[in-house]
Amino acid sequence: MAEDQDLSVSAAVTYPRKILEYMEGFLISKVVFSSCELGVFDLLLGAERPLSAEEISRALGTSVDGTERLLAACSGLELLNIHQDNGRCLYSNTDQASVYLTRSSPVSLSQSIQYSSRTIYLCWHYLTDAVRSGRNQYEKAFGVDAQDLFQALYRSDEEMVKFMQLMNSIWNICGCSGALAKQCTSAYPECTVTIFDLPKVVRTSRENFFTEANQRIGFCEGGSVLLVEALLYEDGSGPLTAQLYSLNMLVQTEGRERSAAQYAALLTAAGFSNVQHRFTGKIYDAVLARKEA
Amino acid sequence: MAEDQDLSVSAAVTYPRKILEYMEGFLISKVVFSSCELGVFDLLLGAERPLSAEEISRALGTSVDGTERLLAACSGLELLNIHQDNGRCLYSNTDQASVYLTRSSPVSLSQSIQYSSRTIYLCWHYLTDAVRSGRNQYEKAFGVDAQDLFQALYRSDEEMVKFMQLMNSIWNICGCSGALAKQCTSAYPECTVTIFDLPKVVRTSRENFFTEANQRIGFCEGGSVLLVEALLYEDGSGPLTAQLYSLNMLVQTEGRERSAAQYAALLTAAGFSNVQHRFTGKIYDAVLARKEA
Repeated sequence: MAEDQDLSVSAAVTYPRKILEYMEGFLISKVVFSSCELGVFDLLLGAERPLSAEEISRALGTSVDGTERLLAACSGLELLNIHQDNGRCLYSNTDQASVYLTRSSPVSLSQSIQYSSRTIYLCWHYLTDAVRSGRNQYEKAFGVDAQDLFQALYRSDEEMVKFMQLMNSIWNICGCSGALAKQCTSAYPECTVTIFDLPKVVRTSRENFFTEANQRIGFCEGGSVLLVEALLYEDGSGPLTAQLYSLNMLVQTEGRERSAAQYAALLTAAGFSNVQHRFTGKIYDAVLARKEA
Repeated sequence: MAEDQDLSVSAAVTYPRKILEYMEGFLISKVVFSSCELGVFDLLLGAERPLSAEEISRALGTSVDGTERLLAACSGLELLNIHQDNGRCLYSNTDQASVYLTRSSPVSLSQSIQYSSRTIYLCWHYLTDAVRSGRNQYEKAFGVDAQDLFQALYRSDEEMVKFMQLMNSIWNICGCSGALAKQCTSAYPECTVTIFDLPKVVRTSRENFFTEANQRIGFCEGGSVLLVEALLYEDGSGPLTAQLYSLNMLVQTEGRERSAAQYAALLTAAGFSNVQHRFTGKIYDAVLARKEA
């Protein structure tokens, strides 16, 4: 056993496989993002049979050469199946690609992917500056002042709302609840939504989302609040996704991810009690707290 | 067995863990890149003991908040060890980080990482455009015309040369052999180097690298050529890294990765014979060919 461990340490130091994988992580993300953006998976879902790179490039209006390389990388990522046909490669979607990477799927990630590809990717080009300054990098990436960020999100971002829905999450609970409430009442005509938020956010939400026609969004003093967030372990050792999202909060909005104890402290200070949490083993976890009327 | 397979297919379609990992690939790359760029691993290598986020941020001139988040993500990536010290986290390098992510290490990846972070990452922001047009995206990313690319590489790129050395590779054999030859003769005063390349490249190499003082670089008619390249499988199904690098060639230079049979065809057409290849199981593989004088 000790000998096995020595061998594996020595192999790790002899060849940095893990670090080389980390270094190509951004290549992998962008292959997925571009394939979605170009509609590769939508085309293959609609086709009755596997298609060649030439057929795909003709249908999408892309170069044959670039399309061949992109399809090959998608097959390496197990998002496409390759079928050999007289020395020619034909491609079809894997199950995961059909379910999660097509625009028409009810659980599609394509809006989230579009947001990652166009917005988050470019913000993260300035991660080093974000860590130096402790400030978000929206202005450097897009010429939008950090002060105007929430306003900008409210004005434009149907995409952002869809993103949050798809991730089954309230992303940064103090920022987007008005947009979420509007989306919920559109998607589920029988439901009513009650908002808890900071006074500033409530004001912005009222101005932007609440019309005479929409009486199903209201406010409540007392009740329970369910936070859907990526929880950090108390000892800071993980989970990796929550650690990455916390950096993403810095780069984009200067929010942060927290541990269950940190949420409990915030909720208790705000007059909530009976705070419980559950790790789900997926991206987003749950914290539930009660406030008496 | 069939039942197990059904369960695993159903789990894959119920939760897109793999796709979500692909989507955060660029976050992981940038955590590694920024940590290197800020000198986190160099500082910890030089320290005699594990350091706190406050100590690290003070030494690097970075924000405490941003540094805490970055260090946490590095520990999630198993590049840093966490030590608990009275409720405070202290950090130290893992073996891999000390060996591959510090500037002073003889096998450091830090130059390669710098090139990936500053140049390749931004080029890949335009991958969709590269696939549409089949053209490199240097001009869009940096305002450098594709025609001037080789000239630009020759003029400036000590970094590029170090990158290639570190990857133990001749990257795009028709582009950089003059720079490599110069680097080799500097690093190993006893060696002489003989160049094989396209007439155009030989001309540029002569103009840029060969002085009276440097008689150790020459040309030879006849001999063997060793290509160090990431080989694609003949059926196009992998390896993933070679597929990604082939897209990278498109995005950056319009070169490409090839299979062993494609290299053999090129070499045979150019008068080489006895072409052999070996897969190494690492990034770069080998093709050896002989040309008679």
